[in-house]
Order: sequence, then structure tokens, then C-alpha cells
Amino acid sequence: MTSFPVPTMPAPPVGVVGLGQLGGSLAAALVAAGRQVTGWDVDPAAREAAATRGVRTARELTGIVVLAVPLPAMAAALEGLDVDPDATVTDLGSVKAPVLAELGSALGGRYVGGHPMCGTERSGPEATDPGLFTGARWALCLEPGTELPRWLRVAEVALAVGAEVVPATAAEHDDAVAAVSHVPHLLAAALAAAAGDAGPLALALAAGSFRDGTRVIGSDPGFVTAMVQGNAGPTTAALARVLEQLARPWPELVAAGHAVRAGGPAGRRPVRVPLERAALLSLGRAGGAVTRRLAAFVEGYVPDVG
Amino acid sequence: MTSFPVPTMPAPPVGVVGLGQLGGSLAAALVAAGRQVTGWDVDPAAREAAATRGVRTARELTGIVVLAVPLPAMAAALEGLDVDPDATVTDLGSVKAPVLAELGSALGGRYVGGHPMCGTERSGPEATDPGLFTGARWALCLEPGTELPRWLRVAEVALAVGAEVVPATAAEHDDAVAAVSHVPHLLAAALAAAAGDAGPLALALAAGSFRDGTRVIGSDPGFVTAMVQGNAGPTTAALARVLEQLARPWPELVAAGHAVRAGGPAGRRPVRVPLERAALLSLGRAGGAVTRRLAAFVEGYVPDVG
Repeated sequence: MTSFPVPTMPAPPVGVVGLGQLGGSLAAALVAAGRQVTGWDVDPAAREAAATRGVRTARELTGIVVLAVPLPAMAAALEGLDVDPDATVTDLGSVKAPVLAELGSALGGRYVGGHPMCGTERSGPEATDPGLFTGARWALCLEPGTELPRWLRVAEVALAVGAEVVPATAAEHDDAVAAVSHVPHLLAAALAAAAGDAGPLALALAAGSFRDGTRVIGSDPGFVTAMVQGNAGPTTAALARVLEQLARPWPELVAAGHAVRAGGPAGRRPVRVPLERAALLSLGRAGGAVTRRLAAFVEGYVPDVG
Repeated sequence: MTSFPVPTMPAPPVGVVGLGQLGGSLAAALVAAGRQVTGWDVDPAAREAAATRGVRTARELTGIVVLAVPLPAMAAALEGLDVDPDATVTDLGSVKAPVLAELGSALGGRYVGGHPMCGTERSGPEATDPGLFTGARWALCLEPGTELPRWLRVAEVALAVGAEVVPATAAEHDDAVAAVSHVPHLLAAALAAAAGDAGPLALALAAGSFRDGTRVIGSDPGFVTAMVQGNAGPTTAALARVLEQLARPWPELVAAGHAVRAGGPAGRRPVRVPLERAALLSLGRAGGAVTRRLAAFVEGYVPDVG
């Protein structure tokens, strides 16, 4: 068993920058979990909403600093704030390679990219829900330069609010979310736009399959555009793979899609994974996740296909 | 006001052929609405399930005969049954031009094609739900040769179980459902199949947008394949229109899709429509529906875009 310098107790304080749906929910969930949380938002109303949930608001941030701001605001998110120069910085952005490129050069091994796979088509502090992360997967990036003890500290934050941690590189993450999140947004937009062109009769006959297939494009268009454009390369490639599927004979296509949707793992097999980058990334590539941290390894699971 | 020979009371009995999810639910809902209902299914278990809901089961059918069988079984659905030669025959099939071609030649004006826009990814008699039609749109086909009094009698059946009746020609219906139902099934299949190829990490990170975007391909693949292949021409054309949308610049595409999804009518404006084929079809083309029948006209609504 490898013996890494694992973090020692007590858990560090958490600073949350941006108190909209994701940041506000995270700050509230961490308060509920007994963690010391400081929050900041440029919008006084968002600060006030967080304060009513027990979040201390201030510009001085230390420990683990979570950037919960939209992608275009990420690079400048710490401007005007007083951040401990040894703080670990993580974010909740929906693409990871561009944020790594922006923040990684300045922060080096202190930056740990993250992406909780949750959130709804609602946004803003009024959509705050401390239970938002319960049971959600939370991708946490492990690059060659990531300092592992800092990665574990950020993982603790995700585990503390009920999420499961999926280790991945930024590039792996971006390819994966292009396929399962960004392309679905584009398909939903195209489906809705084409049905709109088809006219009122078509929209009047729209039922469950149209409602489900277009729900996600109810989200703020600025947010969706920033997300797909921020992951343009992987999304273009993933969209091309969907178009290839659409060119297959329909019985084949329907059978293949049904098999993926109806299939899925039979269960979860508990595993212990040593605190090594390669082992953690293998866990993520197998579809597994970290569910608990112990002394010299993490506990998690991989899908049981048996 | 036109004075058509509107149907006289009492409402005719209904025969339902096929007692799976749709037929079983319709028969049960009609029993609950006080209509006289006879049902038949080749499967004794389906007949037994219907009987427990108060449906009389027999091979002798009269009045309005509803074919609630899968598309491939439609042409032979009445074989072995004793059907009144003056019965009005309707169906619940998800495509209408092919069924019209098959049944219309033999039945002429006695055939009225129908398609309730409901049902779930579940199927079979165990998915029976008498509330399935409440609030659903029910497309009802008006061809040049359709006998209007028969159309109104079938419309009464739809209204009796809580649906709203959308008048359309078979060709209009098939174009519309290609855009809002059949293409969504193909997109869901392609999305799921491509994500499956992307691997376990992608599926592990799949969240709401993937779940919603693929839900409909959880349906029985044989049913989905029969549906899209039974409407191959309109579905191919509608899919091509979606692919055109996907070739637009993403900010434009996202804005256009969001506008359709977030838009929709501001309300419903009540209207009275004379009992004429052209007026009824205009109502359907405007996105309206029939909600109630009176003596010499139908009451319905059109979307209020004001």
C-alpha cells in the first residue's frame, strides 16, 4: 500500500465565490455538514440569501476556495478578493481544459478542476437547494501536476455534501461531458427549432417524447452557448459521432440506443484504490467513483457488470 | 351556421380490439365514463385483466370499433371477429397514412383514423391506466371521404375519456408526429448509442440532460422501429430538417431552440367551429383543439398568442 502524505484533520475552511444555484447550494450544504464556510458574490442579494442559510460572507478566503461563477467570469473571479496564497482553488465549471489552461498556469498544483454533474434548468440564488449534490457524480480532475493531498481535500468537500467523486483528467472529462451533456443540449435545441418551423399543429401534437427531448434547452441560452462553445472541440467530435449513428439503418440504431439506455451496470462492486494518480484515473475510466476516504487509500466502487 | 346531420343520442357502444396499455386504458376509462364497452384481445390474460375493470369481453363488436393493436397487426386485427358491417372503425396507431391506405380501401367513409398523443415507455395490460388520456391531445383524421357524423361519434369517445380532439388529415398528422415524436425517438437512440461508445466514464458522468434526452428509447425497440419505419418518408424529411438546424452556428441554434421551448401560447381563446371539414382542419392547423360538441358546431380553442 502506498503511503502518501494524506491530509490531516481538521478539515480546512471553504470559501465559495459566486452564490447562485450551484455556489449557493454548495455553501448551504457545507454549513449543514458542519464545515466552516465563507461566501462571496458581487450581487448583494445573493450574499444576503446565503447569509440567511448561515453562510458568513466576506472577501477574505482561505483553505479551499471554490469558484462557482459562469465560465466567462472564471479567469477574473478572484479579482478584488483577499485569497490566502496557499489556498487550494477548485471550480464547478462545466468544461475543464479551458479553465485548467486559464487558472493552472497561475496556480499550478494548487488548482484542482471540478464539475458536479447536477443543477437544473433553473438558475440564480432562488434556485438554491442544499440537497442538490446528494447522489450526484462530481468529476474531479487529476492532472500530472495536481498535488494529490489538495485533490483529496477537495474530494472531501464533494463527499461532505453527498456526492460521489469521479477522478478524470480535464481532457477525459471534456470528452465525456460533450457526449452526455453538451451534445444533448444541441440536439434539444435542434429538435425544438425544427418543430417550431413545422408549425402549430406539430407543437399541438407534441407530447412526452418532445417534452423530454427538449427540456434541457429551457435553460438560459447564454449559459448553454458558453458551455458548448467552451468545449467546442470535444462537442464537435461528439456531435459527429451522433450524426454517424443517425446514418445507420433505423432498426440497428434503435436496437443500439435501447441497449445502452436499458442496460447499465447490474450493481456496484466495492473497491479500495491506493492514493495514486494512475489508480484513481483507472477507477474513473471504469465508470467507478470514490465514495469515502480512509488513511492510505480511498474507498469507492466500480460498476458490477456480472 | 351549417346544419349537419349531427349524431343523435344515445352514444353508441364501443368495441376495443387489443387490450394492452392503450386499449386496456381506453376500455377502462370508457367503462368509468358510463359507456357500454366490449373488449377483445388474442391474449386471454389481457382479456382477464380488462374484465376485472368491468369490460365485457366478446368477439361480437358494434357501434364504434377501436383497433388498439400494433401497426403490423392492424390489417388483420378484425379477422376472426364478428363486426357489425355498419360499425365505425377507428384506430390508435401512431402513423395514419399507411393505416388509411390499408383500412380505408375496404371500409371507405366508415374508417376514421385516430392517434391519442399519450402512452409511456411501459406497455402491456399491466400498464393500464384509465387516466392515461386526461388532458392528452387526440389527433382524429378528416379525409375528403370521411363521413362527418362518424368522425363526431369517434370524437365523443376521445372527449369522454378526457382528451382534446385535434382535427388533421392523415398526411398532416404524419408530418407533425415525425417532427415531435418519431425524430425524438431516433435522436434519443443516437445519443444513447454514441454515449455507449464513448465508454463507462461518459455514462458515469451522465446526468439529467442525458437521462431526459434518452428516456424515450427505453421503449420496446420493436415498437419504436415499427413506428419510425411506418412513417419513413415524413420521418426522413423531419430528420433532415433537424440536421439542417444542427449545422447552424451554435449561438443561433441555441437561441432558436430556446425560443420554441420557452415560448408557447399565452393562453387559449375559446372558439366555435361549424361542422365542416375545412373549418375543423383550419382549427387543427392553428394549433387548436375540439373540447366539446354542441348541436350544430363544436366548441374548442385556438392558442392565444396575444
